[in-house]
Amino acid sequence: MKLLRYGEKGAEKPGLLDDEGKIRDLSGVVPDIAGDVLTRLDELKSVDVSKLPVVEGNPRLGPCIGGTGKFICIGLNYSDHAAESGMEVPPEPVIFAKYTSAICGPNDPIIIPRGSEKTDWEVELGFVIGKAAKYVSEENALDHVAGYCVINDVSERAYQIERSGQWSKGKSSDNFGPTGPWLVTPDEAGDPQDMHMWLEVNGKRYQDGSTNTMVYGVKFLISYLSQFFTLHPGDIISTGTPPGVGLGMKPPVYLKEGDVVELGIQNLGTQKQVCIKDV
Amino acid sequence: MKLLRYGEKGAEKPGLLDDEGKIRDLSGVVPDIAGDVLTRLDELKSVDVSKLPVVEGNPRLGPCIGGTGKFICIGLNYSDHAAESGMEVPPEPVIFAKYTSAICGPNDPIIIPRGSEKTDWEVELGFVIGKAAKYVSEENALDHVAGYCVINDVSERAYQIERSGQWSKGKSSDNFGPTGPWLVTPDEAGDPQDMHMWLEVNGKRYQDGSTNTMVYGVKFLISYLSQFFTLHPGDIISTGTPPGVGLGMKPPVYLKEGDVVELGIQNLGTQKQVCIKDV
Repeated sequence: MKLLRYGEKGAEKPGLLDDEGKIRDLSGVVPDIAGDVLTRLDELKSVDVSKLPVVEGNPRLGPCIGGTGKFICIGLNYSDHAAESGMEVPPEPVIFAKYTSAICGPNDPIIIPRGSEKTDWEVELGFVIGKAAKYVSEENALDHVAGYCVINDVSERAYQIERSGQWSKGKSSDNFGPTGPWLVTPDEAGDPQDMHMWLEVNGKRYQDGSTNTMVYGVKFLISYLSQFFTLHPGDIISTGTPPGVGLGMKPPVYLKEGDVVELGIQNLGTQKQVCIKDV
Repeated sequence: MKLLRYGEKGAEKPGLLDDEGKIRDLSGVVPDIAGDVLTRLDELKSVDVSKLPVVEGNPRLGPCIGGTGKFICIGLNYSDHAAESGMEVPPEPVIFAKYTSAICGPNDPIIIPRGSEKTDWEVELGFVIGKAAKYVSEENALDHVAGYCVINDVSERAYQIERSGQWSKGKSSDNFGPTGPWLVTPDEAGDPQDMHMWLEVNGKRYQDGSTNTMVYGVKFLISYLSQFFTLHPGDIISTGTPPGVGLGMKPPVYLKEGDVVELGIQNLGTQKQVCIKDV
């Protein structure tokens, strides 16, 4: 299933994408793609999609998951991205927080904060927790995944690196977390460690990688993180980015007003954002 | 007003503490001490407290604020605490995230994670956002505060410092965020930059300081943070700890099963936690 949330910001309704690419309204079946609903996605499989109302027009897509408590990002999780950032692959995962107020729809604008000169992009594979996880083994880890999605881990490099720390400061500006278009359940997503991923700015391809070069994979990350705290349904884990971010260019390239960012991951759909300046 | 939330975890009801120290039920007046309610706390002042139902018995207190989106912590914000940690006062505030799943009631147990040997304490002044703040000036900053509360920024030093970063990893274990007992509105809290604060373990006083030695004060922090992202009602900012944490002792002292931690801040009440091991 490709689950999604559509409608105005803060008032999104649950939906799914049918085989013809039409949005079907799920609000008669579940209240939201969030919380407890994630623990019983299997029930949705018995719904007769052809009987769900078709959503007409071309509504805004919201983030494909609601009610997220933790937005956990993994740093330097692709060896060549670590190299382009001038850092080493860490001996265990680096985790940092993106504040959840940064989460937005997949095609909402990227808002360049006032005075920012180093707003950057990062295409990332995100996964969403479907069942609470604490002290879980790698063997059972994937049972806790509700689904996968595309994330743009938008980052302000000066805030992140030059402004006294820690990284959250440069990762959490409003709209710095485009999430979606859909939450793809594991049966449709395929192998999370073998997905092609890419990102383009104004049609020029900057990132072109695969999750098969990820250092710490999804299974390991769930087990690892669950040693520190309970993972709850709706928590998002964003697994790091392959090479090709603006910071890694020589000279660096950063986003400016009017730039168009497009990105996607195999089986998980695409995002498109226009950059605007904060007023 | 001293606002609070009482009852079982996840099912807390709103209440307030009356002048005699009794809990009064506010659930007939507001749905929770959370979200939009915080933008209209002034309305609560017209409530006739004597007509609110008295809550009998001795219920558990939950965190004094619900629906928190961001739990923002300020690092090294007391010059002598920075010194005891072997770090320098940063040229601008260090901010890091405590994941909101760590939030618990003021007297809930401190859960020492499996295998942890360096669980530590930090008494901190917390403040809660009452009105959304983006690009606000210091002059108007305090208009955005709903109230103040005690926070124990429980920290696992090995996870925080020795495990590849970032700090969130050692700040976010379950129950690492005792918050309350009450949210004290600004009119009753007094000057946030002149509050006595203290923390004891098994009756021995380890921390004994005042917010008057805070490096970056509340006003400045609101303005500063709001340059990076929107602060929303319910967001908690924990402003750092004075000297006397376990890490700073020679040799270091860490919490063990059965230890009793008591802490408080002038005008804001006290907390008491028993340490247990995670099973």
